[in-house]
Amino acid sequence: MTTPQTHIQGKAIKGSRKIYLQGSTPDIRVGMREIPLCTKCPGNQPETFSVYDTSGPFGDDNLSIDLAAGLPQLRDAWIKQRNDTMVLDKPQSSYTRQRLQNTELDHLRFAHACQNPRKANGHPVTQMWYARQGIITPEMEFVSLRENLNTSEAHPATTPEMVRAEVAAGRAIIPANINHPESEPMIIGRKFLVKINANIGNSPVVSDIASEVNKSIQAIRWGADTIMDLSTGVNIHETREWILRNAPVPVGSVPLYQALEKVNGKAEDLCWEIYRDTLIEQAEQGVDYFTIHAGLLRKHIPMTYQRLTGIVSRGGSIMAQWCNAHQKENFLYTHFEQICDILAQYDVAVSLGDSLRPGSQADANDQAQFGELITLGELTKIAWNKHVQVMIEGPGHAPMHLIEENMQMEEKHCWDAPFYTLGPLVTDIAPGYDHITAAIGGAMIAQKGASMLCYVTPKEHLGLPNLEDVKTGVISFKIAAHAADIAKGHQGALQRDWQMSKARFSFSWRDQFHLALDPDTAYAFHDQTLPEEADKDAHFCSMCGENFCSMRANHRIREKANQQAKPFES
Amino acid sequence: MTTPQTHIQGKAIKGSRKIYLQGSTPDIRVGMREIPLCTKCPGNQPETFSVYDTSGPFGDDNLSIDLAAGLPQLRDAWIKQRNDTMVLDKPQSSYTRQRLQNTELDHLRFAHACQNPRKANGHPVTQMWYARQGIITPEMEFVSLRENLNTSEAHPATTPEMVRAEVAAGRAIIPANINHPESEPMIIGRKFLVKINANIGNSPVVSDIASEVNKSIQAIRWGADTIMDLSTGVNIHETREWILRNAPVPVGSVPLYQALEKVNGKAEDLCWEIYRDTLIEQAEQGVDYFTIHAGLLRKHIPMTYQRLTGIVSRGGSIMAQWCNAHQKENFLYTHFEQICDILAQYDVAVSLGDSLRPGSQADANDQAQFGELITLGELTKIAWNKHVQVMIEGPGHAPMHLIEENMQMEEKHCWDAPFYTLGPLVTDIAPGYDHITAAIGGAMIAQKGASMLCYVTPKEHLGLPNLEDVKTGVISFKIAAHAADIAKGHQGALQRDWQMSKARFSFSWRDQFHLALDPDTAYAFHDQTLPEEADKDAHFCSMCGENFCSMRANHRIREKANQQAKPFES
Repeated sequence: MTTPQTHIQGKAIKGSRKIYLQGSTPDIRVGMREIPLCTKCPGNQPETFSVYDTSGPFGDDNLSIDLAAGLPQLRDAWIKQRNDTMVLDKPQSSYTRQRLQNTELDHLRFAHACQNPRKANGHPVTQMWYARQGIITPEMEFVSLRENLNTSEAHPATTPEMVRAEVAAGRAIIPANINHPESEPMIIGRKFLVKINANIGNSPVVSDIASEVNKSIQAIRWGADTIMDLSTGVNIHETREWILRNAPVPVGSVPLYQALEKVNGKAEDLCWEIYRDTLIEQAEQGVDYFTIHAGLLRKHIPMTYQRLTGIVSRGGSIMAQWCNAHQKENFLYTHFEQICDILAQYDVAVSLGDSLRPGSQADANDQAQFGELITLGELTKIAWNKHVQVMIEGPGHAPMHLIEENMQMEEKHCWDAPFYTLGPLVTDIAPGYDHITAAIGGAMIAQKGASMLCYVTPKEHLGLPNLEDVKTGVISFKIAAHAADIAKGHQGALQRDWQMSKARFSFSWRDQFHLALDPDTAYAFHDQTLPEEADKDAHFCSMCGENFCSMRANHRIREKANQQAKPFES
Repeated sequence: MTTPQTHIQGKAIKGSRKIYLQGSTPDIRVGMREIPLCTKCPGNQPETFSVYDTSGPFGDDNLSIDLAAGLPQLRDAWIKQRNDTMVLDKPQSSYTRQRLQNTELDHLRFAHACQNPRKANGHPVTQMWYARQGIITPEMEFVSLRENLNTSEAHPATTPEMVRAEVAAGRAIIPANINHPESEPMIIGRKFLVKINANIGNSPVVSDIASEVNKSIQAIRWGADTIMDLSTGVNIHETREWILRNAPVPVGSVPLYQALEKVNGKAEDLCWEIYRDTLIEQAEQGVDYFTIHAGLLRKHIPMTYQRLTGIVSRGGSIMAQWCNAHQKENFLYTHFEQICDILAQYDVAVSLGDSLRPGSQADANDQAQFGELITLGELTKIAWNKHVQVMIEGPGHAPMHLIEENMQMEEKHCWDAPFYTLGPLVTDIAPGYDHITAAIGGAMIAQKGASMLCYVTPKEHLGLPNLEDVKTGVISFKIAAHAADIAKGHQGALQRDWQMSKARFSFSWRDQFHLALDPDTAYAFHDQTLPEEADKDAHFCSMCGENFCSMRANHRIREKANQQAKPFES
């Protein structure tokens, strides 16, 4: 097992540079990617186009990142200024203390692993609590600036007050653990841009800290809004520390996985005490949201016996085994109030796991799935009473004609809490291409209101994703999310398509490449057919050649008609 | 320029073998792929699963194909038995005669190029004409057998009589030129399985006969139901002959492209006489459907001046230039009856080109697009009066919320003629990944009723697809088409997903790979994580490892509950 190389030079995606939008105070600086354009349209000056950017310091050409030191703590001052947290003299998690004391782990340990986590010193310290007090936090202002990109002042996509109101109502969440100050605030909710999550994490089969940190950096470079560390292998604690300290995006986890590791993989040996310590361990490290499989009740389990693919959620199958072994109700359900009390002290959001999501077309939208969904709605109310931010996890696998019902049922039973889905995959017959089967379903459910999509990589159902798979998964889901933003009428999103089309019509090949989600691939594919540098100034398309270039013909047609193209209006 | 290697050994996709379903006469033999399964479920014997197969002789391990001789002429006897065609003593196309006499082309020419094409000897010889006479042709029976795969006898997906009725009503077409007897009949219509087309063809930038034949074989191997030869480079006539003689699927073309080549790329030099000879040339070679841009009228052209991306159809931009240069109405429109008279003599179907399809999100569903669509409806009636089979081409680019309107408008204005769309692409910002942006829109419009989807490869907007791109495009669109089949409730389609899910739940890795759209990639991806042969018998999933394998846990849960999984019912 290797730890990451310590120094990385920040690097913007080809054809762009990092810029910062200044908020109301000097420390509210929202990073975005500015793409200089060379497209010249009649009456238009050369301009730039800015796009939402999740890459943090890793996307800034002017920064060198010391992975062993971790990222700058953007939110540290904001958290301190609120003056409602205390710094502990040691971690409360006994497991964390053991790990810190174990000298055999010295070579793996993140050197600056925090020994003095923060926790609330009275009232809950969640963004929901602040929002309900009428407070607009710097996190909310940051989010509002990000979301407003490319929308007009007259018709802003959002305002800080709207962000506050949505968070207060539970219709949106800002995952922002006070122990993860490196994270740049972002928001998940149906009135905002659709977000995507990238899963990373080691496994018993393949485990290496450096690989997972590299996957995390790869994912955020290409646009992952959050990452989930789903590690189930060795040294999960240390792996997570490296990831968190170098993550400019919120990090989610499934604490149950690590709890299971602590009992050597025996589901029946799980207990509340070990799980509780794991929650505190991960909350003290800074995990921003936890998937918690509290909605699986004993009564639901027999509903899965007739399924073609049973329970496909790992957490769900673990808890079902536990319930069956002990003939007791799911301890995550029975302890849910206590769980929320812990989460509220760190502002860990809860992502209510869909233990009974369908694992095949055949099992979609069945009694088991919707039975659990109703329980998730019940748990949502409990969490909100504790001021804990909530999102609801959704499928999975579902044929296209059953997708909308998922969204409708979630809204109805879970009171408009943000819906966070895994795809859904619209067919089961394409292993190796499930980034596509899932992007189809993801785009459709996001159009109907899902707020965040968990990516699926080409390796789904087959193996562990490598760096290239992570990129492919992220780009595929950026497509799904962006297509949904357009279909939902987000004016700022549509601007990028307009810029791309304008570049196409004016043969500005470099602008086309730079405006693309993946400029590197766009350049590479164009070079395969027309490798000469001069071809990037060609006034025809390489697919058709000069006489068959419709774009070229249009310019002639319009000249002939003595008409001018309408100047592009941004 | 090289011609193809002459001999190819037929080869089924990994894990399957070619079988033939016998029809009512010995020469009606419908090829399909049979996948032997090793999945054993309680009470179930080992079984096989058969899937629709477009690969023709190329997918039969027992056959060796001599590309220089062309494929066996499956439909030859059927055509002769109808006794309504005559064999010409020489081609009627003067261009064809020139090419045949040109000795400089000898090294490129398909050796057995037909010098004696067939044409009708009286009434129209279209499948639509036969259908309207109440005749069920062998083509219709063949199609019915193919479409019925995996549906029950009690609830067949189709019957020969239903095929006949749909073709007679114009709601479906069977593209089947009497000069392309090598083609296996297939049907395009909303009551049948959704089909996909793969575009191939050389360009002025890259031209090679062997490459195009290889792309054609690659496309049909992975599931293309038709191919379109969109060549715009040199030796188009000879390239097409090689493709047709080795195509077991219908071949489409855009005769206008070749006509333009004949006038050296100058749109204004086009004329009816050259176009007419090109129609006859290609009809005599055996092209099964022609895209004809007859719907673009002079009045539509100014509607495009305000567009962001003008006219993006190549054929559309050519005809717009012609109209403007001559200040005359589109000669394809004014000669449309004569065009149909020619097509009816060979049974070439017409695919009414959407010259004004949008080329960007910004231009979707505009006045120009729908204005032309109304004209396409008018032309549909004319073609049907001549017993010519018709499909309607559709977009293109469209945001998700505007997709359904495209289908509704097409049905309304074009009298339920089959809709054949290119995607649509649901965003413009992902060059390099437009197989995904288009598969999303394609799946959605097919769910609403589009009958055939034209594939888009990763190279769209950037360059010419290579063999790998062709495969990726085909698989991506098989996903879209299949997802739509499921959503439309096609029981035969859903069976494959059920078989896959059953294989997943029983850890039958090889069955999963073999049931996949692309077994080669499934094997390769699995081997990347777990390369040992024994891992293919592992009773857990490589992504999670043993303790975290939900599928494995289910078996324990069900054992514990003393319950049995419901036996899989096919």
